[in-house]
Amino acid sequence: RTLRIGLIPGDGIGREVIPAGRRILESLPSSLNLKFNFVDLEAGYDTFKKTGTALPDKTVETLKKECDGALFGAVSSPSTKVAGYSSPIVALRKKLDLYANVRPVKTTLGNSNGNPIDLVIVRENTEDLYVKEEKTYEGPDGKVAEAIKRISERASSRISTIAGEIALRRQKIRSAAPTSTRDQPMVTITHKSNVLSQTDGLFRETARKALAADKFSSVLVEEQIVDSMVYKLFRQPEYYDVIVAPNLYGDILSDGAAALVGSLGLVPSANVGDNFAIGEPCHGSAPDIEGQNIANPIATLRSVALMLEFLGEEAAAAKIYAAVDGNLDAAKFLSPDMGGKASTTEVLDDVLKRL
Amino acid sequence: RTLRIGLIPGDGIGREVIPAGRRILESLPSSLNLKFNFVDLEAGYDTFKKTGTALPDKTVETLKKECDGALFGAVSSPSTKVAGYSSPIVALRKKLDLYANVRPVKTTLGNSNGNPIDLVIVRENTEDLYVKEEKTYEGPDGKVAEAIKRISERASSRISTIAGEIALRRQKIRSAAPTSTRDQPMVTITHKSNVLSQTDGLFRETARKALAADKFSSVLVEEQIVDSMVYKLFRQPEYYDVIVAPNLYGDILSDGAAALVGSLGLVPSANVGDNFAIGEPCHGSAPDIEGQNIANPIATLRSVALMLEFLGEEAAAAKIYAAVDGNLDAAKFLSPDMGGKASTTEVLDDVLKRL
Ligand SMILES: CC(C)[C@H](C(=O)O)[C@@H](O)C(=O)O
Ligand SMILES: CC(C)[C@H](C(=O)O)[C@@H](O)C(=O)O
Repeated sequence: RTLRIGLIPGDGIGREVIPAGRRILESLPSSLNLKFNFVDLEAGYDTFKKTGTALPDKTVETLKKECDGALFGAVSSPSTKVAGYSSPIVALRKKLDLYANVRPVKTTLGNSNGNPIDLVIVRENTEDLYVKEEKTYEGPDGKVAEAIKRISERASSRISTIAGEIALRRQKIRSAAPTSTRDQPMVTITHKSNVLSQTDGLFRETARKALAADKFSSVLVEEQIVDSMVYKLFRQPEYYDVIVAPNLYGDILSDGAAALVGSLGLVPSANVGDNFAIGEPCHGSAPDIEGQNIANPIATLRSVALMLEFLGEEAAAAKIYAAVDGNLDAAKFLSPDMGGKASTTEVLDDVLKRL
Repeated sequence: RTLRIGLIPGDGIGREVIPAGRRILESLPSSLNLKFNFVDLEAGYDTFKKTGTALPDKTVETLKKECDGALFGAVSSPSTKVAGYSSPIVALRKKLDLYANVRPVKTTLGNSNGNPIDLVIVRENTEDLYVKEEKTYEGPDGKVAEAIKRISERASSRISTIAGEIALRRQKIRSAAPTSTRDQPMVTITHKSNVLSQTDGLFRETARKALAADKFSSVLVEEQIVDSMVYKLFRQPEYYDVIVAPNLYGDILSDGAAALVGSLGLVPSANVGDNFAIGEPCHGSAPDIEGQNIANPIATLRSVALMLEFLGEEAAAAKIYAAVDGNLDAAKFLSPDMGGKASTTEVLDDVLKRL
C-alpha cells in the first residue's frame, strides 16, 4: 500500500520536527509493505506574511484531492491583533471535518515518577467556541464583545462514539499486555453543565446516550465537571483512561495532562475524520529555540504513529511507539526539555536505530 | 467596629465548615476591637427543594441591607437537569456585583514538597459564559445549543485594576518578610486571544491598558494563553504571583492550582465588590463525607481572613492566617484529606488555640 502524506511544517520548530516525521516514515521496515509519497504544503504565520493568507486554498485542495493523511508542525500567532490573520490549524480541522482531536498522554518505564499514567483525551474538534463567531459593539460603559459557544447533538454524539471505540481498542491492546492493571475500559465525560445547562447539558446528555449503546456495554462511563476534572487529573492521573470533552476544555486538559509527563515535547495528537488523519505535535512553534536543532522530535514521531493508527496501519504505528519508548527508557539521547543534551537529530537517529 | 456577617452554609459540608468560620470570628482577640453580629441565611439545593428557589429574595435583600460581608459554604448541584434550578452562588455574585473572585494558593513551611508556591488567581466574576444566556434549537441534524460568552471593557478593566492592586499589596507584605525571594510584583494575563480575537482579545488589550497605569509602573506584566497557562502552572508554579483571568478560565485555573497544594480543602476564595465581600471555600459540598465531622475547615477559615482583608481588617486577617499556618506546619491536627486523622472540630480547636 502507498500512502500519500502532506507535510505542513508551519512556523518555528515545526520546520525541524516535521522533517523528522518524514524520516521515520521513510525508515519503516520494508516488511511492512508500506510506501509513502510526500507533498510539501504551506500554512502558518510566515505564509500569511508572504501571501496574505495563513492557509492557502492550494494546501486544502491538495490535502482533499491527493492525500491520505498529513503531518502538521506548529504555527506562530502574531503577538498583537493582525487584521485578516486566523489560525490555519483551526480552519483545517473544520474544512476537512476532522472532528476528533485525539491526545494520548502516557508515561514510559523510564519516564514516570509515581504511578504510570496512560490516558487519552478525546477532544471535539469542530465547534464550541472554536466556531469563532464573534462580534463587538459599543455598550453604555465601553466596548462589549460576544462569542458564540455552539454545541450540537451531532458533534457531541460522534465524538462520544469515537471515544467509546478508542476505549474498547485500548482495552484490547491492554489485555494482550500482562502488566496492565486496568481491567475495564472507562470513559469520563467532561462538561460544565452546572453552569451551562443547555450547551454543556446537551454535550453531557448526548455523550451519556451515545455511550449507552450496546457495543459499549463493557465501558464504565463517568463524568466530571471541568474544574474538578483538572483537579483530579493532577491528583490521580493514573485513574483515567479516556476523557471526552468539548473543544475548549479538551484543549486545556491536554496541556494540563502534558505537564504530568514532564514535557509538551512528548505529547502527540491526531486530528481525525472519517477518512483522513493529520498528525500534529501538541507543542507550539517555540520561536525561542527555533533553528537550534534542539527541539524534541518525540511528539512528532508519536503523532506520525497516531496518524498511521487512524489510517489503519496499526503494525507500523506499534513499531514507532516501541522505538520511541525504547529511546525514552534508555534515556541516553534526550533533548534539553527532558533534561538531556541530545540534539533533535541525535534523538531521531537513536529512535531510528530502534525501529 | 461591629461587622454584620451573613452566614449561608448551603448544602453538605457547608453546614459543618461555616459554623467553624463563625467560631473563629467570635474567638478573635478582644484587643482587635472587632465585634460581629451574625444573621443566618438560606440558599442551595436543599433550599430549592423546600421552597422552589435556590436563592430566596430574603437572602439577597438581607445581605444588601443589613450585612457588611458574608460567608458562603457550598452548594450541591442536581445530578440531572432540574427545571428552574440555577446556581445560587453564581446569581449572588451578579446580584451584589461582586466582580472579583480572589483565590490565593500558597504552600506553608510544613506543606510544600518543592519550591514554595504563593500565588493568587484573580478571576472576573460577573460575565464571560457565566451570563448564562443560552438557547436550544432544532438543526438539520438534531439539537443545537448556543451560549453567549460576553466580555466587556468595563469588567475587564476593573478586574485588571484590582489584580494590579493586589500585586502591589502583596509586594508590600513581602517586603516586610525577610525570607521573600520575589523582588517585583507581577501580573500574568490569561486569555485565548489566538482563537477568540474579539472577546479574549478585548480582555487582553483592556488588561494591558489598565495595568499600564502609572500606579502599576513597578508591576511586571506578562501574558499566557490559557492552555499554556495550565501547563506552566504545573511546571513552575513558584514563578507566578498574580494571575488575572476571565471567569471560566479563572474557575479552571483555581482548581488546578488547588491540586498543587495537595487539597481543595486548603484553598479559600473571596467574592469581592466595592463595599462587600463574601468568603467562600473553593471546595464543593462533598456529599460523600457530609455529616461525619471530617471536612477540612481550613479553606473556610482562610476565606474568613480573606473576607476580613477586603473589609479593611488586615490585622484580624493576619492573625487568622498565622494561626492556620501554625496548625499546618505543626501537622499534629490534620484532617483526612491532608493525610491526618483529626476531625473538623479538632482542627478548628487547634487553630483557635493558636489565635
Ligand atoms: C494554536 C491553537 C489555535 C490550538 C488550539 O487551541 O486548538 C492549540 O492550542 C492546540 O491545542 O492545537
Ligand atoms: C459551583 C460552580 C457554579 C462554581 C463556579 O463555577 O463558579 C464553583 O466551581 C466555583 O468555582 O465557585
